[in-house]
Amino acid sequence: MFSEPKSKHIPRATIHRLATYVQALENLARDGMEIVSSNPLADACGVNGSQVRKDLAYFGEFGVRGVGYNVKSLLLAITQALGVDREWKMALVGVGNLGRAILNHHEFRLRGFNIIAIFDCDPFKIGEIMHGMEVRCTDDLKTHIRDVNIDIGIITTPPERAQRAADNLFSAGIYSILNFAPARIKAPEIAHVEYVDFFHHLYALAFDVTKTDMHE
Amino acid sequence: MFSEPKSKHIPRATIHRLATYVQALENLARDGMEIVSSNPLADACGVNGSQVRKDLAYFGEFGVRGVGYNVKSLLLAITQALGVDREWKMALVGVGNLGRAILNHHEFRLRGFNIIAIFDCDPFKIGEIMHGMEVRCTDDLKTHIRDVNIDIGIITTPPERAQRAADNLFSAGIYSILNFAPARIKAPEIAHVEYVDFFHHLYALAFDVTKTDMHE
Repeated sequence: MFSEPKSKHIPRATIHRLATYVQALENLARDGMEIVSSNPLADACGVNGSQVRKDLAYFGEFGVRGVGYNVKSLLLAITQALGVDREWKMALVGVGNLGRAILNHHEFRLRGFNIIAIFDCDPFKIGEIMHGMEVRCTDDLKTHIRDVNIDIGIITTPPERAQRAADNLFSAGIYSILNFAPARIKAPEIAHVEYVDFFHHLYALAFDVTKTDMHE
Repeated sequence: MFSEPKSKHIPRATIHRLATYVQALENLARDGMEIVSSNPLADACGVNGSQVRKDLAYFGEFGVRGVGYNVKSLLLAITQALGVDREWKMALVGVGNLGRAILNHHEFRLRGFNIIAIFDCDPFKIGEIMHGMEVRCTDDLKTHIRDVNIDIGIITTPPERAQRAADNLFSAGIYSILNFAPARIKAPEIAHVEYVDFFHHLYALAFDVTKTDMHE
């Protein structure tokens, strides 16, 4: 079912849509659906059917013409293609409300994304045990993760501390960053920073509401 | 400084970038910068200078050629243009770890996004007081918010309960939804659903790591 990617130059937009297809397929699997064709899958993801077919074609030949895709096989093939079907080790910096929620978010572990080290720069938090782990000082990040292979760093600090957190992660050799802090990060070329930006979405909603009000 | 939008057809990508500019400008304002030109602003946002100039042009004439933009005025102009410079009333459905973190996330209130009603379907949580509010039963959402004008609904339920939460919000007349649950939502045409999707970002990072490993 799954073959080597046809092209190494897979557009980032496709990667993002694949993650959306995974969610839609998980919904379908939960509802007991076994087979899906590209159009309902596209509807569930807010794109069109030809986009789905085009995106999936990057990863080889999926599905049977006129029959559709097997939900579970497609789910497995996409997660394999994305390379996410393994355990990921993550370090989290900033154990405030959001950091703790993410630490306790069982959807992360369900998908193999495990937080195995936690850091904060608040002396009142350092040494505290959370989720079975000791909170370490962010400035000592490099030392504490020397012996573990961290794949991804998560930043959940206040915005004014996000850059320092990122710099500590970079200096420890962690260049894949998921940033939840509402701040832009200056990063070296080699780094990949993904922004989970609540406000960007809230602003988009707010703009829609304002625009709709103007037309009423 | 700020004039009426030149065009009502502002691309959603521009709106999303404006939210990013707001973050970068907030960083600059925090660092005490008063003036910025389009290129450093573009660098901070991962786009190019002409994109910044083009995006800002949708909202009238900003900045002075050869001098740059006044950071605070531009920040104000963008938030006015987005229509976000007012109070927004929000209802939150799902007071698990993530819901509670969002409830306590002071960046929301700082930006005028206030959660004024909270719901859950867990009988052990209903009636509990969180952040000064009583947790109400999600099925009674429509009744409880009859007298308040809710702008935005936030969904922080587990994925399998996200659709029910959304349906309750829709039936209460709330069509602007910020969905944190890792599930796709079936929504009426009139609705705007924004997805805050942690996994979509984690998958993108994971794919980059996998791809880099392949090339080594």
